[in-house]
Amino acid sequence: MGEEMNNKQVILNNYVKASVKESDMSLRTSKIQLKIPSGCDGAVLVKNLYLSCDPYMLSRMKKLEGHYVASYTPDSPITGYGVSKVLDSSHPNFKTGELVWGGTGWEEYSLIKDPSLLFKVQDKDLPLSYYTGILGMPGMTAYVGFFELCSPKKGETVYVSAASGAVGQLVGQFAKTAGCYVVGSAGSKEKVDLLKNKFGFDDAFNYKEEQDYNAALKRYFPDGIDIYFENVGGKMLEAVLNNMKLFGRVAVCGMISQYSLEQPEGVHNLSNLITKRVRMEGFIVSDHYHLYPKFLEMVVPLIKEGKITYVEDIAEGIESAPGALVGLFSGRNVGKQVVAVARE
Amino acid sequence: MGEEMNNKQVILNNYVKASVKESDMSLRTSKIQLKIPSGCDGAVLVKNLYLSCDPYMLSRMKKLEGHYVASYTPDSPITGYGVSKVLDSSHPNFKTGELVWGGTGWEEYSLIKDPSLLFKVQDKDLPLSYYTGILGMPGMTAYVGFFELCSPKKGETVYVSAASGAVGQLVGQFAKTAGCYVVGSAGSKEKVDLLKNKFGFDDAFNYKEEQDYNAALKRYFPDGIDIYFENVGGKMLEAVLNNMKLFGRVAVCGMISQYSLEQPEGVHNLSNLITKRVRMEGFIVSDHYHLYPKFLEMVVPLIKEGKITYVEDIAEGIESAPGALVGLFSGRNVGKQVVAVARE
Repeated sequence: MGEEMNNKQVILNNYVKASVKESDMSLRTSKIQLKIPSGCDGAVLVKNLYLSCDPYMLSRMKKLEGHYVASYTPDSPITGYGVSKVLDSSHPNFKTGELVWGGTGWEEYSLIKDPSLLFKVQDKDLPLSYYTGILGMPGMTAYVGFFELCSPKKGETVYVSAASGAVGQLVGQFAKTAGCYVVGSAGSKEKVDLLKNKFGFDDAFNYKEEQDYNAALKRYFPDGIDIYFENVGGKMLEAVLNNMKLFGRVAVCGMISQYSLEQPEGVHNLSNLITKRVRMEGFIVSDHYHLYPKFLEMVVPLIKEGKITYVEDIAEGIESAPGALVGLFSGRNVGKQVVAVARE
Repeated sequence: MGEEMNNKQVILNNYVKASVKESDMSLRTSKIQLKIPSGCDGAVLVKNLYLSCDPYMLSRMKKLEGHYVASYTPDSPITGYGVSKVLDSSHPNFKTGELVWGGTGWEEYSLIKDPSLLFKVQDKDLPLSYYTGILGMPGMTAYVGFFELCSPKKGETVYVSAASGAVGQLVGQFAKTAGCYVVGSAGSKEKVDLLKNKFGFDDAFNYKEEQDYNAALKRYFPDGIDIYFENVGGKMLEAVLNNMKLFGRVAVCGMISQYSLEQPEGVHNLSNLITKRVRMEGFIVSDHYHLYPKFLEMVVPLIKEGKITYVEDIAEGIESAPGALVGLFSGRNVGKQVVAVARE
């Protein structure tokens, strides 16, 4: 039968409208048998170790139709990326005791009925939490958006917004490995210092101290921007379009400044796409997971040789999860926001 | 010395601010020697036969910095594309009596000091005016934007705005040759009839009769749009983004609805680029003229076999040129707007 355990879960109370507050979620303790129930062929039962707080989760909290991911179900635990340990498995690819990362529930234990978004943890020498970040979805996001969509060339200029976040800090470091000149923006002095002193950005600025994004970008890119890795949207995107170089590329990864608005800001200068022959392309990392082995081959040696670094902001305990997720949208986190639920 | 002739010219009086009126231009008669002056090596002297009215010309009438084309000079004749006959040449590639198309002045005779944007008329069996349209810059624009940027596949759905214009009518016909389903929009019943009955669009609508572009597009594309050939911008682009399919492509050719506005409309839903993995790419045809021979190889047989057709709106006489150009921005023209200055 398996041991019956208490299972603390993060529940979505109701669909959210624009922004999310901690009170939109609640903690509930339910019971779970630590054994795959009969009739659940192909399932995996896991203990969750780390949960990943990602901006896209806000859209799943809304009642959306035709979105690329389904809305969460109110009164049920939310789901996301995490790192977990397999406690029981009826799936041939996964064995008890293995470590995995991928789609799981925001709870202490999860019965994953469809493990198609589970990957095995390949390298246990590196911090396990990295599989919510540099070695997981955000790492792949930075890799795909920067290398696959933007085809960077040595000497090109790169601008990254939300640059100290889970994805941005990697884009900047990847840009340096590609021989580019990279400037990042973030929302505090502490984050700007990280960009310049820890992640090796050529320059960085605090967007909250800039009255005029257009003027700021002209200062940092007097000859214009070849590649923009778009994480924020709105007015910043508008300023960037004014400052793109001919044949520039914009990888549209996210627009975090817009997700909490009732009405997103308008972008009024898209004619720059024509005059500057700019390509702007949106992407979803899950379309590109076939590149994961190639990505690991590149990134693991860079980490081990100390050529690339990763900063995490780890909240302790599942009780801290709602606050950690909400904090993403005010930029409270410094580095990748993770929730440590348990440590093996 | 060459004969001295009167030379009627279309003069830009002053930079325009937002929209253009006929009174922003005036006609002036100057004198010209029909011979290349000494010291003008590499120049070509032409008699202009047809002048092309193109939307991009409005931006050249404004005082813009860092634009892809230079602003016109007030109190001088404006320039554009045209079809001309060589009267004298000090350039090895062009001979007296030859017909050419490309960059020329809005006047009866032009001394073209830099003929790098002149092409020889290849096929004299077809109407000469076609070199301002289907066989010239607009033809290449339709070809490059549709085939090179959008890589259409058989069975895909294509939406073209400003679909009866110089470029749009061709995009629709190219889409049919590629086995696509194509719907166009235009601004009058007459134009919609042309789209359906002459150009073979699968369907068409009058955007001026639609209160809600979003609803209109849902009606014509219940399963969404794979390819959008963007000629208008603003609210229509916003509605299209809501109706794009996954992995859709937007070739951004022009935004004619925006050029005459003091402040362009905002596009508020660019996050569709992410959720739908849409690629949106601006282009300028002059970057792609190396493809012109390949284009002619495709399009000339299609015209001769009657598989593709072209509608022109020809204004007679250089005196009609300012009105013809201004008419573009209110959609007065039906088909490609040309000015016939002389007929050989």
